[in-house]
Amino acid sequence: MTATTSGAAQASGIEPFDTVDLIHAKRDGKKLSTAQVSWLIDAYTRGYVGDEQMAAMAMAIFLNGMDREEVRDLTLAMIASGERLSFDGLSKKTADKHSTGGVGDKITLPLAPLVASFGVAVPQLSGRGLGHTGGTLDKLESIPGWQADVSAEGMRAQLESVGAVVCAAGASLAPADKKLYALRDITGTVESIPLIASSIMSKKIAEGTSALVLDVKFGSGAFMQDPARSRQLAETMVALGTDAGVATTALLTNMNVPLGLAIGNANEVRESVEVLAGGGPADVVELTIALAREMLASAGQPDADVEAALKDGRAMDTWRAMISAQHGDPDAALPVAKETHVVTADRDGILVEQQALPFGIAAWRLGAGRARKEDPVQHSAGVDLHAKPGDPVKKGQPLFTLNADEPARFERALEALQGAYRIGDPGSEVHDGGPLIQGRITA
Amino acid sequence: MTATTSGAAQASGIEPFDTVDLIHAKRDGKKLSTAQVSWLIDAYTRGYVGDEQMAAMAMAIFLNGMDREEVRDLTLAMIASGERLSFDGLSKKTADKHSTGGVGDKITLPLAPLVASFGVAVPQLSGRGLGHTGGTLDKLESIPGWQADVSAEGMRAQLESVGAVVCAAGASLAPADKKLYALRDITGTVESIPLIASSIMSKKIAEGTSALVLDVKFGSGAFMQDPARSRQLAETMVALGTDAGVATTALLTNMNVPLGLAIGNANEVRESVEVLAGGGPADVVELTIALAREMLASAGQPDADVEAALKDGRAMDTWRAMISAQHGDPDAALPVAKETHVVTADRDGILVEQQALPFGIAAWRLGAGRARKEDPVQHSAGVDLHAKPGDPVKKGQPLFTLNADEPARFERALEALQGAYRIGDPGSEVHDGGPLIQGRITA
Repeated sequence: MTATTSGAAQASGIEPFDTVDLIHAKRDGKKLSTAQVSWLIDAYTRGYVGDEQMAAMAMAIFLNGMDREEVRDLTLAMIASGERLSFDGLSKKTADKHSTGGVGDKITLPLAPLVASFGVAVPQLSGRGLGHTGGTLDKLESIPGWQADVSAEGMRAQLESVGAVVCAAGASLAPADKKLYALRDITGTVESIPLIASSIMSKKIAEGTSALVLDVKFGSGAFMQDPARSRQLAETMVALGTDAGVATTALLTNMNVPLGLAIGNANEVRESVEVLAGGGPADVVELTIALAREMLASAGQPDADVEAALKDGRAMDTWRAMISAQHGDPDAALPVAKETHVVTADRDGILVEQQALPFGIAAWRLGAGRARKEDPVQHSAGVDLHAKPGDPVKKGQPLFTLNADEPARFERALEALQGAYRIGDPGSEVHDGGPLIQGRITA
Repeated sequence: MTATTSGAAQASGIEPFDTVDLIHAKRDGKKLSTAQVSWLIDAYTRGYVGDEQMAAMAMAIFLNGMDREEVRDLTLAMIASGERLSFDGLSKKTADKHSTGGVGDKITLPLAPLVASFGVAVPQLSGRGLGHTGGTLDKLESIPGWQADVSAEGMRAQLESVGAVVCAAGASLAPADKKLYALRDITGTVESIPLIASSIMSKKIAEGTSALVLDVKFGSGAFMQDPARSRQLAETMVALGTDAGVATTALLTNMNVPLGLAIGNANEVRESVEVLAGGGPADVVELTIALAREMLASAGQPDADVEAALKDGRAMDTWRAMISAQHGDPDAALPVAKETHVVTADRDGILVEQQALPFGIAAWRLGAGRARKEDPVQHSAGVDLHAKPGDPVKKGQPLFTLNADEPARFERALEALQGAYRIGDPGSEVHDGGPLIQGRITA
């Protein structure tokens, strides 16, 4: 029946392809041509291909995959659906970073000013959080006065003067990706390498950066649990960036344990400022430095002394200028939760487990994240960790503190944390998934 | 991210399941429980589960399958979405037939009155055609005055008086199936055994028959080309019917070649009347008799002399009564096309090939079928075959005639027929896919 229906659509002469034919092809494991992928995304953006048809296609892509050319075509088609930024006229080189998202991942906050302090422009278009992974804009909005919206001209000016800008991506970049991502979210088709890779890279390439460093996470708090699948995602994205002329590298990092000691919004800003002041938790510092080195190397400064810029206040100066340029007060007090609930160790031993996902869910349930796009976040809500896996603990010692404005939220946060952490005998094996940085992928 | 979103939906206490969780389960090859399938179909019918979500689910079912219990649950859930007919009070036994559809398949027309002439009630709820397979109601509507709409009370009365009724299925039977079928049609998820089987059987079981014979076709003009897949579909449907307490059998029949000599609407009625008059093409007669025997056996008359009822006019009398009861004039002239185009043999030899699908498409392009639900059909349009595979032909002898009201339609019909038929040397192998009836499936 479909053969004839498609015959009719083609005979009409209006559209070069029939939607159902393309769904059949992918469903039956065939490869889509460049022209087909390009038409599909264009026709979906303008509404000729319906959401229900794209949902079936997304599931077919999820289950049958796409080869490198198809993923490249999909990425280019999503870029072509909107505007493309360009920083060609800038007096500095640009470098951008993207993280696939995790629990306690505030790295953009210290990283952007750190790299900018070396004279490299860091245009960081960011999003808001949904579910258990927080959003960089949500975190920065806990700074009184700070504004996420910056015009294209404002961005360029701030990159020239300050060097770093973290702001909201406009609706004009890769609108097809926005539409497709919203669809994938409600149709169970998120965790697909071709779809994730093209979604991330279409936005990043459209943003016009010349160098890009990817922080691809694996583990319980990441998009993908499996390190091998994360590596595959990283390889796919590095290939896409390279094909598009963007110098792209990726670090493969462990997200089985929350990053740093703060999970939330205001508390993550506080921790970032500690790093910029030369302190902060070892894992946050390690990852910030590693990503900064990658970005600076891509921008032609492989030997930059990154640690020095954290120690001597240069990165902090850039941070203060970056926050001020967006109407934030770097000296203002950050919001503090009305209520706290401290969980203590019930025995002596060492902390052998601290699972990222449940802690992310707990922070989300405390009010740090949102269930729906239109919900507000509570900037003071979240979790402060007082011990990390491998740390010795004494009975009665605080393990973590829950922060919320409404005490009623503690119960459901604690429910999420059932079995999420464990104290073992001294000498027990620590279940943290291994080192923080487990791989580096280049073209 | 989904784990948390679903947690939120479940916490709201409104719905027992989260749609995305169920899509994930099927996507990842897991089995859905009875409660999950039942909720899914109910929630889809009332609009809580969106079309885009059901499309993703349908593709996941297409690619990952469903086991016997899931298909049974799906069928029962679709039945539960609407009303259920019952012929319990009738003085006769009931027997129903369903064909999975093919080119030139007019068997319902002679079959229903033939079986009814033995005192068995044949309530035949039928549909209209879409694409290259015609619809029984479209064919009967070429009889002047004939009405497809019969009320439930009218149906019962006609079954008591005449014994056979062929009419339109009301919207109240299995509305979930109607909604899902329309969705599958535009999302490339039609040819899935669990989805086809549950769609057909939910309607047939809801129609309240006590015996059912299925004509499951395979070959180029059928839903499924592959005999093995058709057998699997037949076995699935027989199991579903049996589980629901309906005596169900199936014949596996060859649809590589058009059935009979007429493909269209009015011409198929003409051919059916020939069969009822004791004549007609051998293949139409063979299948009509085989299906009638199955239906009569299921209704307790295994030894009924079916051929006699065709020869002695009993079946024809019931046909005339059936048409008259629905305001049709069995003696009225049937519409004839304004234009004809005859294709002749270009050499001597034997007809070795006559592919069902291209001939179905040709008839459809001549105006016999519709591309969209709301289109009208042209009752006089279609193809008349003058030779069948295996027949010897002489150069210049007519092979088939195209009938249409507009001569402009011939060109595209002839395009569809390029390479669809072939004359070989005497003694060549005939490519007709073998015998008409190739299997019988019972519980």
